[in-house]
Amino acid sequence: MSKREKPARPKAALPRGLRDAAGEEVRATRRMLDAVGAVYESYGFEPLMTPVLEYTEALGKFLPDQDRPNEGVFSLQDDDEQWLSLRYDLTAPLARYVAENFDVLPKPFRRYQWGPVWRNEKPGPGRYREFLQIDADTVGTANPAADAEMCMLAADALEAVGIARGDYVIKVSSRKVLEGLRESLAKATPITDDQWLAALRSADKLDRLGSDAVQRLLTVGREDESGDFTKGAGLTSGQADNVMRLLGFSHEVVKGYRRDPLLRPEEEGNSGWIKWLSERVNLGPTGEKGVGELEQIADLVQSSGYADDQIAIDPTIVRGLEYYTGPVFEAELTFEITDYDGRPVRFGSVGGGGRYDGLVSRFRGEPVPATGFSVGVSRLYAALEHLGRHAARRTPGPVVILAMDRDAQAGYQAMARELRQAGIRAEVYLGASGMKAQMKYADRRGAPAVVIEGSVERGEGMVTVKDLIEGERLSGTIEGREEWTAARPAQEKVRRADMVATVAAYLARHGFSPGARA
Amino acid sequence: MSKREKPARPKAALPRGLRDAAGEEVRATRRMLDAVGAVYESYGFEPLMTPVLEYTEALGKFLPDQDRPNEGVFSLQDDDEQWLSLRYDLTAPLARYVAENFDVLPKPFRRYQWGPVWRNEKPGPGRYREFLQIDADTVGTANPAADAEMCMLAADALEAVGIARGDYVIKVSSRKVLEGLRESLAKATPITDDQWLAALRSADKLDRLGSDAVQRLLTVGREDESGDFTKGAGLTSGQADNVMRLLGFSHEVVKGYRRDPLLRPEEEGNSGWIKWLSERVNLGPTGEKGVGELEQIADLVQSSGYADDQIAIDPTIVRGLEYYTGPVFEAELTFEITDYDGRPVRFGSVGGGGRYDGLVSRFRGEPVPATGFSVGVSRLYAALEHLGRHAARRTPGPVVILAMDRDAQAGYQAMARELRQAGIRAEVYLGASGMKAQMKYADRRGAPAVVIEGSVERGEGMVTVKDLIEGERLSGTIEGREEWTAARPAQEKVRRADMVATVAAYLARHGFSPGARA
Repeated sequence: MSKREKPARPKAALPRGLRDAAGEEVRATRRMLDAVGAVYESYGFEPLMTPVLEYTEALGKFLPDQDRPNEGVFSLQDDDEQWLSLRYDLTAPLARYVAENFDVLPKPFRRYQWGPVWRNEKPGPGRYREFLQIDADTVGTANPAADAEMCMLAADALEAVGIARGDYVIKVSSRKVLEGLRESLAKATPITDDQWLAALRSADKLDRLGSDAVQRLLTVGREDESGDFTKGAGLTSGQADNVMRLLGFSHEVVKGYRRDPLLRPEEEGNSGWIKWLSERVNLGPTGEKGVGELEQIADLVQSSGYADDQIAIDPTIVRGLEYYTGPVFEAELTFEITDYDGRPVRFGSVGGGGRYDGLVSRFRGEPVPATGFSVGVSRLYAALEHLGRHAARRTPGPVVILAMDRDAQAGYQAMARELRQAGIRAEVYLGASGMKAQMKYADRRGAPAVVIEGSVERGEGMVTVKDLIEGERLSGTIEGREEWTAARPAQEKVRRADMVATVAAYLARHGFSPGARA
Repeated sequence: MSKREKPARPKAALPRGLRDAAGEEVRATRRMLDAVGAVYESYGFEPLMTPVLEYTEALGKFLPDQDRPNEGVFSLQDDDEQWLSLRYDLTAPLARYVAENFDVLPKPFRRYQWGPVWRNEKPGPGRYREFLQIDADTVGTANPAADAEMCMLAADALEAVGIARGDYVIKVSSRKVLEGLRESLAKATPITDDQWLAALRSADKLDRLGSDAVQRLLTVGREDESGDFTKGAGLTSGQADNVMRLLGFSHEVVKGYRRDPLLRPEEEGNSGWIKWLSERVNLGPTGEKGVGELEQIADLVQSSGYADDQIAIDPTIVRGLEYYTGPVFEAELTFEITDYDGRPVRFGSVGGGGRYDGLVSRFRGEPVPATGFSVGVSRLYAALEHLGRHAARRTPGPVVILAMDRDAQAGYQAMARELRQAGIRAEVYLGASGMKAQMKYADRRGAPAVVIEGSVERGEGMVTVKDLIEGERLSGTIEGREEWTAARPAQEKVRRADMVATVAAYLARHGFSPGARA
């Protein structure tokens, strides 16, 4: 458009792994965020908004894929040569915020935040490079009650958006339990930090890849279907067997790895797990400390009225992020959906979190314990869509005032205004098309009704109001075009002064209350 | 933390021109967005969320500062070498979205969107590199009624967030009027597109820089206080004089440029302006078309019940963006504040917009008319803060259950849960400090009340509830420490079973209704 710039026509497309959301999806997403936010507020968490851009150095490098050249983060250089990154989660910016404002914040500090985060990763089906998270974190206390609170608020948040009890479980384990296992395994053959981190990330893939793949990732590495080779963690096969046992798998020479009921407690529920971990697994002092914390969490959530099917101890929970140091959580939806290959699978994780005592300390050089929980908003949206929870709250489209007569625009605008003042969404058709196209437009807009005032009606002081919802219902029942025209169902000619009342009555008939929040 | 990375301690700081928002500011911002969004919904606009990253090429280069080397946009290169940018406004992504989904969208297409946008510019006081906008746009109609609607919804939106009538004005002008002026001025000495764009941007700075500076920017250029030289648009002084006349300034040899009441209509209001522009300014056919559109807008808003002090024609409105092609709008707040130098100034612009018929056409190569309006959310927040509109709706902090006794944590959690179930924000103190520090914590959290259950009280089945709001009020009236201790005002020992009712009564006494939305 400017003379400086006359390029070929640009392509109207988004970069891969990015998407738009429109209309009802946006409204439903906001309702979810409002509902989850209200739960977090009720627990005393305060809202925070940090900017999207941060110093790369301040965010640190804690993503699972940090071995890749671009490290999973979108980065750019500022005017002053410093590197900035788009945040990859909401925890790293929180750590920066707390460190920056440490002296003025009440401690423990509880905050919640929601917003988009970015991962510079290979996108896939349902896997985007920009997505929404909503997080709650408590900074400044090592008390396991703070971890218990995370589990309780996760359960409450899921129920607040419409996930029924029985359709979800908040699983809890502890990195200290895993660290205890490492300590005991490392007595014979040492395990480096990098090896152990790789081992944890392998274990975290159990649900997705299965036991044989995980065993290979724990030891020598694995080639996937596409032929890509992933380096193994390099544990000995004895060490790997022990990790697999904690995950519930034993090894038989002929059959390979398989789930072994003997590796699970006889007694059901959280107390059964605590007992089994204390008695049956050799975890050393660190692991025992972890089990003790899990026990405290289990006691607190139980006495607060949460059952073992809502918040459940499960040692297979690992979480891929490096920075966790204590209890870790995973919010799983337990109902089945059909996967991309048409097989029934559990819906799976919609969020998770854990204790990360080192993240704020990075800045301050003194220990600052913290724990948090994060919900993947798009995953939760997809779950609610699957459960049909969105449809019921659909916002009606606007009432459309047809533009019958160009000269009468002022009168049409006045009608729209009157409807709005009565709390009813309304718009005047502003295009240049004829009556038939306008009716089609009203249809596409999801209009519950149209208002028609031609010159004859105007002369009489009347308007015609058409109930499109009733009309659509009737169009299924009335046979021929003639019968339809004769009956003219679902429309009324009323006095101009009665227009608003008539439209309001139509909406009420279909269960929409005027003035209801979108 | 990883062995791979042991840098010096990172600095806990944000890059310049970026900021955090916390607590009540976030809540107030959301209330504003909700209120504005509800107005947009009532006009039939549908919500949209586009990703933050877009192809640089798709966004185009329409920023005022496009001459700077980095072009005012944050950009980075994707894995596949393509350039991506952070959106600099919400209009360019909308143009891409409409072009991409042209065939399936109802037309005219009305959408609203809010979210952060980024400008890679020099930050200054109150001027950030990341800020929130909320926009409404109508795409697919050249009908001036769509522009009139923008003005009406801007007025409604400002009133919805609490700006009273009389405190704002939506000013309207037209790029076609300016284009008409250009056509008439270019008859003697030609004016290039670039010159005219520079002239418009100069005229847009009248409020900030004053008339003499604008005249210099229109002609030979200008050195500012810092010694930076800005190139002039290169108009002849005769051409510049005519531009200045439209802005209301005449030139006298001795006194220089000054506001001239003779360059303004005698008759007040929009009809006076229409008459004056038609009769007194030589605008040629394009300019006359612009005046005709302004007249239609003025008629429609008037017949919809908006007065000339709400929506006012004002030819000094220019808008800095290149892409406007017809009516342009500016939402100004008219009350005075104190500027950085302590002088009283009008609060000024909180938003604006206009018709941009070329932006979608960039992609499609066919005309797609569009018009829109954008509110600067932080500016509006600042205005409401100045007017004291936020304070009244302050959300109370959580009730804090003091941790008197480590062994009683389960009971404390149960109390918090009961309060939450009654719609009252509540938390257990999770730190390790003593009673005095806990009371200080409750204070900093803005807790309306604390609940105290020591072992003695527990034995009796009682709890103590302290009303901190009343307590603070009384602390101003009671003289000595002894009198205070003797009276123990604003606290009560009640049965454990009556705790929730007691807290609820305290909150009600201070005007907070339990369960009210944050």
